[in-house]
Amino acid sequence: MTKSELEKLDNGEWYCFKDAEVVQRKAIAAQLCQEFNEIPATDPDKQTDKIKEIFGSYGKNISVQSRFNCDYGQNIHVGDNFLSNYNLTILDVAPVNIGNDVMIGPNVDIYTVNHPMSAQGRRDSLGKGFPVTIGNDVWIGGKSSIMPGVTIGNNVVIAGGAVVTKDIPDNVLVGGVPAKIIKNLKG
Amino acid sequence: MTKSELEKLDNGEWYCFKDAEVVQRKAIAAQLCQEFNEIPATDPDKQTDKIKEIFGSYGKNISVQSRFNCDYGQNIHVGDNFLSNYNLTILDVAPVNIGNDVMIGPNVDIYTVNHPMSAQGRRDSLGKGFPVTIGNDVWIGGKSSIMPGVTIGNNVVIAGGAVVTKDIPDNVLVGGVPAKIIKNLKG
Amino acid sequence: MTKSELEKLDNGEWYCFKDAEVVQRKAIAAQLCQEFNEIPATDPDKQTDKIKEIFGSYGKNISVQSRFNCDYGQNIHVGDNFLSNYNLTILDVAPVNIGNDVMIGPNVDIYTVNHPMSAQGRRDSLGKGFPVTIGNDVWIGGKSSIMPGVTIGNNVVIAGGAVVTKDIPDNVLVGGVPAKIIKNLKG
Repeated sequence: MTKSELEKLDNGEWYCFKDAEVVQRKAIAAQLCQEFNEIPATDPDKQTDKIKEIFGSYGKNISVQSRFNCDYGQNIHVGDNFLSNYNLTILDVAPVNIGNDVMIGPNVDIYTVNHPMSAQGRRDSLGKGFPVTIGNDVWIGGKSSIMPGVTIGNNVVIAGGAVVTKDIPDNVLVGGVPAKIIKNLKG
Repeated sequence: MTKSELEKLDNGEWYCFKDAEVVQRKAIAAQLCQEFNEIPATDPDKQTDKIKEIFGSYGKNISVQSRFNCDYGQNIHVGDNFLSNYNLTILDVAPVNIGNDVMIGPNVDIYTVNHPMSAQGRRDSLGKGFPVTIGNDVWIGGKSSIMPGVTIGNNVVIAGGAVVTKDIPDNVLVGGVPAKIIKNLKG
Repeated sequence: MTKSELEKLDNGEWYCFKDAEVVQRKAIAAQLCQEFNEIPATDPDKQTDKIKEIFGSYGKNISVQSRFNCDYGQNIHVGDNFLSNYNLTILDVAPVNIGNDVMIGPNVDIYTVNHPMSAQGRRDSLGKGFPVTIGNDVWIGGKSSIMPGVTIGNNVVIAGGAVVTKDIPDNVLVGGVPAKIIKNLKG
């Protein structure tokens, strides 16, 4: 039996991102995000209710500030006390698993989708998901970006404007483009 | 005969960006972008119709996701299969010519306007346009920025978070701030 | 007498950012910003009236383009001829003092709040304000970020995509992540 493009996507295989079912899944998520983004900032309870409808799972005491964009929503899993400032973008083609006590500054991007290095592969509209995993007690500074497939340890601080392209161990401060370890933190 | 500020702008000469006609052109573009940004994500055909009204010219099968901001719109020319993810910003004071099969990640900026290095020049509200040219089969990774006057070749991949300040040849992967060649790609 | 969290915040001491009064102050600012962001771009006078309601003080001939986000607003003080392009984000927990003839490109972030390097401190939801000061005749290029506590001199150009982590003297062009002096400018 032939797999659908959505099945390939969910299996972490190359899929066609112009496939009708794939496009529709993203449009539904974009619509939910638009509804979230229209909620007045003075009604944080309503914001939290809507974000819980978008996320795949969530812990206690979560808070996400407007605006928020994602590709699916159901692939986003956050722990207790998750907090994000303005304009978080998560391309959650693959799962994004986030631990407890994670804070995200404004204008942060988390990506899980890559495209081929070959021009022909991109002309074929191919994408492939790579999960992102973020530990407990992580602070992601404003305007940082997390690239597809990255795993970030526990007790990590990511400096503002960093681009995280590789796995990050526990108990470090990282920064720069690409992000490198700046110093060790107490465990 | 004295040139208007808008004529100077269109000629690639220093112009005053506080001139009434220049300000009005930008306000009209901003208004069209607001209309685009209010279209529901579940109505991609309407989004495409509106973006075609904004762009100067376009090829087949183009798709731009909300939000989008530009300064004029008529200076943006895209080829077949142009695709942009969330929050593309194009300051198209000068022409932005984009080839076929170009994909743009979320939160990318393309600039064509510079200001003087002298404080007095900036107090005089001077700007000057420098066209940006992007070849075929280019993938611009999320959160990258393309600076005024840059020409990007064919079959180029720009890594997420890169700031492209100089011309990029064909068949390369570039990344970093400022962007440098990371490796050659097969032509 | 015990200080409230808001008093600690205003005194530049560690405060709890989940305190009800602190959260409410931010929600009010976010609501004002939403109102600003809904004004049509074709009505710049109305935009300017609203931004004057948000800012703590301002000089002559100021202009801010939509969208704009801040945490309080009353801590933002701008001089004459202040001009900001799309999507300025200012986390003004502490004062942000901006001189005359300052231009800001699109998608720029200015931060004044830091969090502890210890996981426990972040679990306690602690923040601390560090004022940002920007001189006269400064041009902040698009997508740049200014980190908490930074002072920028007069006649400074910040290249697009820079992350400014340290004080910047007068009469220089800076760029990169973290930002470094690229060349001296004429005073």
